[in-house]
Amino acid sequence: MTTSFSDRLSAQIRKTGSATCVGLDPRKASLPGELRLADDASPEAWAASYETFAIGVIDAVAGKVPVVKPQAAFFEQLGPAGMQALYRVVQHAHRAGLLTIMDGKRNDIGSTAEAYADAYLGAGDRSPWGSDSLTVSPYLGADSLDPFIARCDERAAGIFVLVKTSNPGGGMLQDRRSDSDQQTIYQTVAQHIAKQNATRVGASGYGPVGAVVGATYPEQLAELRKAMPQAYLLIPGFGAQGGGAQDVAAGFHPNGLGAVVNNSRGIIFAHQRPEYAEKFGASAWQDAVAAATDLMNQQLASVVQPAQT
Amino acid sequence: MTTSFSDRLSAQIRKTGSATCVGLDPRKASLPGELRLADDASPEAWAASYETFAIGVIDAVAGKVPVVKPQAAFFEQLGPAGMQALYRVVQHAHRAGLLTIMDGKRNDIGSTAEAYADAYLGAGDRSPWGSDSLTVSPYLGADSLDPFIARCDERAAGIFVLVKTSNPGGGMLQDRRSDSDQQTIYQTVAQHIAKQNATRVGASGYGPVGAVVGATYPEQLAELRKAMPQAYLLIPGFGAQGGGAQDVAAGFHPNGLGAVVNNSRGIIFAHQRPEYAEKFGASAWQDAVAAATDLMNQQLASVVQPAQT
Repeated sequence: MTTSFSDRLSAQIRKTGSATCVGLDPRKASLPGELRLADDASPEAWAASYETFAIGVIDAVAGKVPVVKPQAAFFEQLGPAGMQALYRVVQHAHRAGLLTIMDGKRNDIGSTAEAYADAYLGAGDRSPWGSDSLTVSPYLGADSLDPFIARCDERAAGIFVLVKTSNPGGGMLQDRRSDSDQQTIYQTVAQHIAKQNATRVGASGYGPVGAVVGATYPEQLAELRKAMPQAYLLIPGFGAQGGGAQDVAAGFHPNGLGAVVNNSRGIIFAHQRPEYAEKFGASAWQDAVAAATDLMNQQLASVVQPAQT
Repeated sequence: MTTSFSDRLSAQIRKTGSATCVGLDPRKASLPGELRLADDASPEAWAASYETFAIGVIDAVAGKVPVVKPQAAFFEQLGPAGMQALYRVVQHAHRAGLLTIMDGKRNDIGSTAEAYADAYLGAGDRSPWGSDSLTVSPYLGADSLDPFIARCDERAAGIFVLVKTSNPGGGMLQDRRSDSDQQTIYQTVAQHIAKQNATRVGASGYGPVGAVVGATYPEQLAELRKAMPQAYLLIPGFGAQGGGAQDVAAGFHPNGLGAVVNNSRGIIFAHQRPEYAEKFGASAWQDAVAAATDLMNQQLASVVQPAQT
């Protein structure tokens, strides 16, 4: 029997001593000089460039972090050629010993949700895209999440449901408090997640249904950690969006498990930061990625210490 | 200057005398015999089969309906080869004179939302996937919708934001009523849509920000028609999900504009229905598609009559 996603994630965190998730968000204008093409280069040429870049990042962070998070949108932005590159990036991450969170924020109803779950959930040859896990949006309600959870059970995969997002406008719907039970929308989603995990807890203490909770709302992060004791939290908003190590501390359990903190631009485009540009130069952008990863690991270690195995 | 998406949609509804949207949802088990492959056929082979099927549906409904809605999930389910087929299906729909709604229910924050908008919004060579419009999820709030609306303005494209969905569980979040202003979540989203359209109304009376409102909740459909007078409604849930012509009548304005009603399985898999199987036989599945489309057009015409041009 395959080890559950949450147990694989816990093992990887213990092995690397890190709860950093590196977001693979290639953007044309921010790529290192050697990979930046002319504005009118073909989608196929850009897709090759994104693939080389993402694989370069993966090679630079392998062994240092438990998991990477490819952002589907940036690959979709290149059309079909980008999706082919995305597939190969996921495969490369697994070859490098990293887990993957496909950041696609997918959702739909019934058999269409099943199709998304089939597409993205299941590492290696267990699904066409081969990712260990997927981010999922909850607007369509509980029955839209069920097909994803069923595939998690079947394929030892995981999902991360949007609960309380890091953006300023996230509260527009998420913070609205119902007149019936005085729960906010994000609390209602959290309660559903907690219930789903309760019967699916793995050896390390977590179920397959994770939650996205932004670093930019530390109070809610603490509240949601308590509300979903068996959910892995995926915490965006660290670095470029303003969250720091102190802000994410409340997302972890005392044993250092229970959360991964995502950083995209702050790590993958570290070559643009003056301190790294000076130290490594443009051609050594992978060294800058590695150094930025080490720095984030140290910052997190100041507030949380996963027991290394 | 390019005609706005809403005006193009109004013109197509008037031209065809139809408000039917045909959902392109290929599913392995339901394909006509000649296109059904062995279970272990490669994703590439299935993608070719899906493409042939979707193109066959398009050719059968061209001139009869204003718009088709490819469901991204079913193509994503085949991996990269499926996405290549999806691209070609969109191109074929435009060659056949049909508008397209890419049903992807995408969303994200900031520059990631921009990437999705860039990817999918804009017909022809205005975007990599070349679709006229895209379905979008609102859970992340107003600032997550802004980049999509900006691209609608720039590229004469449209979006359809999930408001009140057709599934039984949709109410879990959408129907919750806030203690601050007594608005439900779906009403809050609708209000935001109405506001966005107010400054963007085209010649036929509609803005670029449409709304998904299920046929399975006729009362809310009537309420939402009033709340978003300048929004095109995309109404799923007709046919297989139980909605009939009377249920969708309230989605239209008296001039027959303002809504399109989606039917996927009821049309594209009409060859499976006993009455059509007998009449046309398995090899004439496109005739069954055409007949089912004519029937739905007649059913809608009994409750709404767009002035034909």
